[in-house]
Order: sequence, then C-alpha cells, then structure tokens
Amino acid sequence: MGEHPIALLIARADKAINEENFDAVVDLYTDDAVLVVKPGTNAVGKHEIRRAMEAIAVHFNGTLDVRQAGMTILETGDTALVLAKTLVSANASPAVERKATYVFRKALDGQWLCAIDNSYGHGVLNA
Amino acid sequence: MGEHPIALLIARADKAINEENFDAVVDLYTDDAVLVVKPGTNAVGKHEIRRAMEAIAVHFNGTLDVRQAGMTILETGDTALVLAKTLVSANASPAVERKATYVFRKALDGQWLCAIDNSYGHGVLNA
Repeated sequence: MGEHPIALLIARADKAINEENFDAVVDLYTDDAVLVVKPGTNAVGKHEIRRAMEAIAVHFNGTLDVRQAGMTILETGDTALVLAKTLVSANASPAVERKATYVFRKALDGQWLCAIDNSYGHGVLNA
Repeated sequence: MGEHPIALLIARADKAINEENFDAVVDLYTDDAVLVVKPGTNAVGKHEIRRAMEAIAVHFNGTLDVRQAGMTILETGDTALVLAKTLVSANASPAVERKATYVFRKALDGQWLCAIDNSYGHGVLNA
C-alpha cells in the first residue's frame, strides 16, 4: 500500500516549516490557496502565506514544531479533504493539539497541492 | 451581502433530507461525491448516496431532522470548505451536535455542488 501521496506531502510541509524552509513550504500550495493564520485572519496566495509563515517563525523564535498525530483522507477525483490531529509546540508555549482540516486539489500533472489550510478546524466558527 | 450561495444550498439540502425528497438531495452532489454514512463507511456517487439517505430515513422512521447551528465557509476559486455545527435529531434519539466538514466544488456553469460530505468531522479518525 504505502502512504497516501497527500500524507507524504503533509510530512514534507511539516519538515519544511520546522526547518523554516519557506520556499519548500509555498511550493506545496496552489497559487490561490487560503491559509487560516488564526481564526478570522486568512492569508491568500503564496506571497501572503510565506509572509505569514515567516511572522509565525519569528513569533516563536525559531522553535516552532509542527507534526501530525493521525489523519484520515477523504478523496474523490481531483479533490481531497484531510482531517488531522496536528500537534503544535514551541519553546515557552505549551503543546496544543489541533483538529486540523486541509483541502487538497490535484493539478493536471497529477500533483496534489494544498488549496485550503485550516489547522484550527471548527475554531474558525464565530471568529 | 445576503447569504453565501453554499449556505443556501445547505439549507435546501437539509429541507430536502427532512422531507425525504431524495431527488432534490442528490441534485446537490457532484457525480462522484463521497458521503460519510458513518465513520469508516462511505457512499460514493449519487446512486449510493440516495440509497444511504433512504436507509437512514427508514432507520429513523421518517423523523430525522437535520439543521445547521452556525457555519464558516473558506473559499478559493472553485473550491470551498465548510465548517458547520450540524444538529441531528429524531424521535427516540437524543439530539446530537456534530462538527461537520463539507467540501464544495463550483462547476463550469457556476453552480456549487457538494463533493465531500463528512458530517462526522474528526470522528472519522481511527474509524
């Protein structure tokens, strides 16, 4: 079987975020992707997503650690929904588990890319 | 402003489900849509989705009532993720609130359709 290509992509994204390799991070998003920076505040497109990631890295003084603790992928055609438990930790911040939701789209070349990145799950309601 | 077209579609879907108007329900899904019937069991395509809806209606003896108690829509291009609080009740069953996740896709004619219907949210993990 092996891992789903989207699970491998998410592992790559986590590694790139933790290493602050933002070129590699934004490569994994569609051109018009939406990232929920915090509930009520979204970054749209690679430029804004990169700026948001850089600001988050500075905020956590380079100690941010993101990893997944389980996920289910619901896929149909060129669209997939990922339900994940995402562990976010950093020095001076307690580790938190988020119920993350990610939507991936498959490009014409077969490559999956993240179109909607909402690590807050239902935390976005009433933001 | 007015309501988002996807919010109106979900309201139509809830009404059609509650009235057991399954022709109207399946019209709101893409041809290859995935419905999580229960964690670990999916219906794929309009035919399976219709059969699952009919079975659920029989199970609840025609008393199923589905409604939304709040939602946030994250949209980019022809893809949207809905985070919703969905209230499900029926005679002889206690009302439950589900943290539902729906993915909609916009067809070439501009019509949004549901591609992934997971009313269980993170309940699908480890199913």
